[in-house]
Amino acid sequence: MSGVHLKTYAERSRNHPNPAAKLLLETIERKQTNLSVSVDVTNRKDFLAIIDVVGPFVCLTHVDIIEDFDETLVEQLVALSKKHDFLIFEDRKFADIGNTVALQYSSGVHKIASWSHITNAHPVPGPSIITGLSSVGLPLGRGLLLLAEMSTKGSLATGSYTEEAVRMARAHREFVIGFIAQRRMDGVGLREQDQSSENGDEEDFLVLTPGVGLDVRGDAMGQQYRTPREVILESGCDVIIVGRGIYRKPGNMDIKGVQAQAERYRAEGWAAYLERIKSQ
Amino acid sequence: MSGVHLKTYAERSRNHPNPAAKLLLETIERKQTNLSVSVDVTNRKDFLAIIDVVGPFVCLTHVDIIEDFDETLVEQLVALSKKHDFLIFEDRKFADIGNTVALQYSSGVHKIASWSHITNAHPVPGPSIITGLSSVGLPLGRGLLLLAEMSTKGSLATGSYTEEAVRMARAHREFVIGFIAQRRMDGVGLREQDQSSENGDEEDFLVLTPGVGLDVRGDAMGQQYRTPREVILESGCDVIIVGRGIYRKPGNMDIKGVQAQAERYRAEGWAAYLERIKSQ
Repeated sequence: MSGVHLKTYAERSRNHPNPAAKLLLETIERKQTNLSVSVDVTNRKDFLAIIDVVGPFVCLTHVDIIEDFDETLVEQLVALSKKHDFLIFEDRKFADIGNTVALQYSSGVHKIASWSHITNAHPVPGPSIITGLSSVGLPLGRGLLLLAEMSTKGSLATGSYTEEAVRMARAHREFVIGFIAQRRMDGVGLREQDQSSENGDEEDFLVLTPGVGLDVRGDAMGQQYRTPREVILESGCDVIIVGRGIYRKPGNMDIKGVQAQAERYRAEGWAAYLERIKSQ
Repeated sequence: MSGVHLKTYAERSRNHPNPAAKLLLETIERKQTNLSVSVDVTNRKDFLAIIDVVGPFVCLTHVDIIEDFDETLVEQLVALSKKHDFLIFEDRKFADIGNTVALQYSSGVHKIASWSHITNAHPVPGPSIITGLSSVGLPLGRGLLLLAEMSTKGSLATGSYTEEAVRMARAHREFVIGFIAQRRMDGVGLREQDQSSENGDEEDFLVLTPGVGLDVRGDAMGQQYRTPREVILESGCDVIIVGRGIYRKPGNMDIKGVQAQAERYRAEGWAAYLERIKSQ
């Protein structure tokens, strides 16, 4: 395999044109961690406790499942992001028409664009979903990830769907900073006429990969897990996203256990990265 | 064309096994309207004013764009749904893994499952999205629509994607009551071995169709519009979804104009339906 993933995160950060992607790469390098923690809990107490103990470089949130959400929670989240030096990625998976996603991103109770550095969207509505989100996020220096693949059994994000997602991203490189996917997308969906004009080295899409677990291979609802080593070293992805692998039992949180698990995943993910860049 | 759409809404309601679908068909017949109004405004004052004047049979909501949402808004919405005899359809377009959508549907600030008769989801994660939503919605008598197609330019919900969506629906007929689509899905995705066991008359999937407008053909963000006659008579869909065609300028609402536009769409949609069942 050749490609940008054989460069260090630091090198890539220097050349990246999008401010959110640049910040993400710098933070990964500075904190020596490519682990993103997905905090899928329904109350703010657990939510803030996990983030404070993990001190992630990226905190992946689902604020729409938090029962006692209000604007003071956003203030607390932003304060933690300064304390621990991390980026916030609301895993909203926008999937509506341009006009609606622009409102969902900027407005409502959650006002995601005002505090989340990165968010993501499904390419299924076509390029207008990027136009809609970009109209809100680009002026704020935000970045968007497209869901090019999913980690669930029977996912329809395969083949020509994935190729179209990558083409849509290439056409909007000022705002689309990469993909939620299980592998690198370098060259995917490139047509013959594109290859002359498009130098593969120029494009640096970040690949963030969910469905990562060390102890189990799946859940009862179709989720499938791979190890950090498979994801970072073998598939060349940039960031591992771990949720339930880190906090087992929300509601009855073993906070020391959470910290230990996060450190375990961080160490595995970073070791796989060091091995990858050494193999150059 | 043959199929369930040549029967009356009343006939179809008598045979439908899902309680939300049955209620929907009964309400359409009783109120003589197949117009669903999509209320895409960001404040509760406009939101409640539109619903109160339109008195729809289905009110299609995007509660996640309402700035001043709280549980009292749900109470007011539910009170209006009793006053005007309508169903509530939260157009949430769920699109995550089973474990996450179950939390998004039941929990968070919005608690959608507790008040919305119908919601919708993208099939892209695979069948687990239905399993996740069904674990919450089925015990409450709710119904789910799958987004088999979209009305936007460059939509990826075409071809084999649409076929897979219909197959997923067929495998979960207790909870999936139909589709968001631009045409009927009867027979779509049927494999040869299915045709012997599957009698086409048995399956009654409702088709609800967005992207309906009488005066314009599109917006600047890739939305494309068709007329009620094209949708109901020519394509055999069951319900037209109209948003911006009815309220032109949120914030400066001409409430008499909203009422007049809603009546215009209602009349067009119903006339197209009467013509359709007469053509049998």
